[in-house]
Amino acid sequence: MHSLEELGKKFAAHFSTDHFPAEPASLYDPNRYFLSLGGKRIRPLLVLMGNELFDDIKPDAWQVANAVELFHNFSLIHDDIMDAASLRRGMPTVHHKYGSNTAILAGDVMLVKAYEYLNMVSKDVSRPLIALFNRTAAEVCEGQQLDMDFETQPEVGLDAYLNMIRLKTSVLLAAALQMGAIIGGAGKGNQQHLYAFGENLGIAFQVQDDYLDAFGDPAKFGKEPGGDIRQNKKTFLAIHTWEVADETQRRLLTELAASQSADKVPQVLAIMKACGVDEWAVALKQQYFDRAMQHLDEVAVVSGRKEVLTELAHFLVQRDY
Amino acid sequence: MHSLEELGKKFAAHFSTDHFPAEPASLYDPNRYFLSLGGKRIRPLLVLMGNELFDDIKPDAWQVANAVELFHNFSLIHDDIMDAASLRRGMPTVHHKYGSNTAILAGDVMLVKAYEYLNMVSKDVSRPLIALFNRTAAEVCEGQQLDMDFETQPEVGLDAYLNMIRLKTSVLLAAALQMGAIIGGAGKGNQQHLYAFGENLGIAFQVQDDYLDAFGDPAKFGKEPGGDIRQNKKTFLAIHTWEVADETQRRLLTELAASQSADKVPQVLAIMKACGVDEWAVALKQQYFDRAMQHLDEVAVVSGRKEVLTELAHFLVQRDY
Repeated sequence: MHSLEELGKKFAAHFSTDHFPAEPASLYDPNRYFLSLGGKRIRPLLVLMGNELFDDIKPDAWQVANAVELFHNFSLIHDDIMDAASLRRGMPTVHHKYGSNTAILAGDVMLVKAYEYLNMVSKDVSRPLIALFNRTAAEVCEGQQLDMDFETQPEVGLDAYLNMIRLKTSVLLAAALQMGAIIGGAGKGNQQHLYAFGENLGIAFQVQDDYLDAFGDPAKFGKEPGGDIRQNKKTFLAIHTWEVADETQRRLLTELAASQSADKVPQVLAIMKACGVDEWAVALKQQYFDRAMQHLDEVAVVSGRKEVLTELAHFLVQRDY
Repeated sequence: MHSLEELGKKFAAHFSTDHFPAEPASLYDPNRYFLSLGGKRIRPLLVLMGNELFDDIKPDAWQVANAVELFHNFSLIHDDIMDAASLRRGMPTVHHKYGSNTAILAGDVMLVKAYEYLNMVSKDVSRPLIALFNRTAAEVCEGQQLDMDFETQPEVGLDAYLNMIRLKTSVLLAAALQMGAIIGGAGKGNQQHLYAFGENLGIAFQVQDDYLDAFGDPAKFGKEPGGDIRQNKKTFLAIHTWEVADETQRRLLTELAASQSADKVPQVLAIMKACGVDEWAVALKQQYFDRAMQHLDEVAVVSGRKEVLTELAHFLVQRDY
């Protein structure tokens, strides 16, 4: 068994190869650039940890870890175009630096490269493994589409939002764990519990993300809070606030959504607090975190093997920065 | 053995299924719409014909035929965004009808669906087959990128243009045939000749396409010729004209490129004819067509089995409409 830190170092070393040919540089340099921006590389670690929960890390796990990380980067490149985001990890996004057309193609060829790694997986596991990868890839696209759809919908229910987050964020974490488990030789039941662990952890993570954007301590959080509120973004908090607000509060929220005034953020925060949305969010996060840990608990391996995943779960979700 | 017409009908029936889930309709309806626009479905036919050249059509061929056609449609959806094309087959393109963001995602999920079909292929052929598919998919992206790069390059050599066309157009035809051959149990040598047949045929087809756009009979061609000239598009003809033109002709070509006057097309055509570019193009097309047929000739099966491919080659390249 490896520690979180060891796995992180091992994967970083493994991944720091040139995944693309030299030419045409106009297509592949953008991908090299984007990968050089780094990232937490959580998803490939989940593959390795899913494998190591059941058995020593097998060569297949490294191929799948690469594929999952490349898929994640493909989706970020395309999402940044759609969201018209100019910065990612403090640096220009691919479409901002190289133009949207190149960013579309660079993403496409990054996805193809992910499938090249998947095609190297042993035949005894390849079919269920790639089927899970494909289903997940489609779901991530569905989640992004729903997210865009919600932008123009006046009201989005909490269940619909939860489902969008599940597709956009959680299923890839869940699938990374399950793919690792498949490689590690886990049975169906263990695979499903591990998937459910990832799924619930992803939602807990997103609730926390939304919470921190509103109520995070700027000193620890590293950025000015309230960005989501300023942009009228639909978040767990915004949706729940609307659901529990009274008529007067709803009228004020509607006015504030149309306003750009300096006290927009504190005013919305005040309504959220008056509605108890901050405590609600903390409880919701805890609920999904607990559900995740229950599923991890159900995985039939000795608890010592689960320590790294428990550590990662706390690292991802209990952060207050 | 099936005739071209029989194979066309069989594939049309096989392909006319709903490849996508109902929901989210905002993501999948655009793909259903685009596939409903039809198309010649040449590439899947090449898979079936590549298979049937060596053996009865196997179930794998139908999966790969679907994958190849979906890949082709994915690339058209994304290319139309990059080319800012508003019409495809006389109907609005996906990005024109549903917006660029949805078109990016719809293309992405179409590509994922292609891989779903590939994941159903028998294990005994899946690895070389998917490796060829992946290499080809990356090459098609490279070709599109080079095509975009050329737009802003003042001079493009004939070899560079030829390589771009090979990547953007030919390799998918070639790979479709070879994938069929792999499924049909062909040996390496036969696979390579069939690939080279498709590669050269694709180039002959593109030379003809460029030729018809300049010199085609409007009555047979179905559209006003000279579109490429009006848009200053780099084509086989434009590149060769520039290479053989004298100083005076080059000056005039440069002036005409900047002009929008009504006699731009006839004037460029006059220079092309004065340089003998029309005859050059006919000879170039014939050269690639002959080379294609030589490779088909080298495939070691009785010539009767090759009749359908010969028919298709003539259908694709000897058309004067």
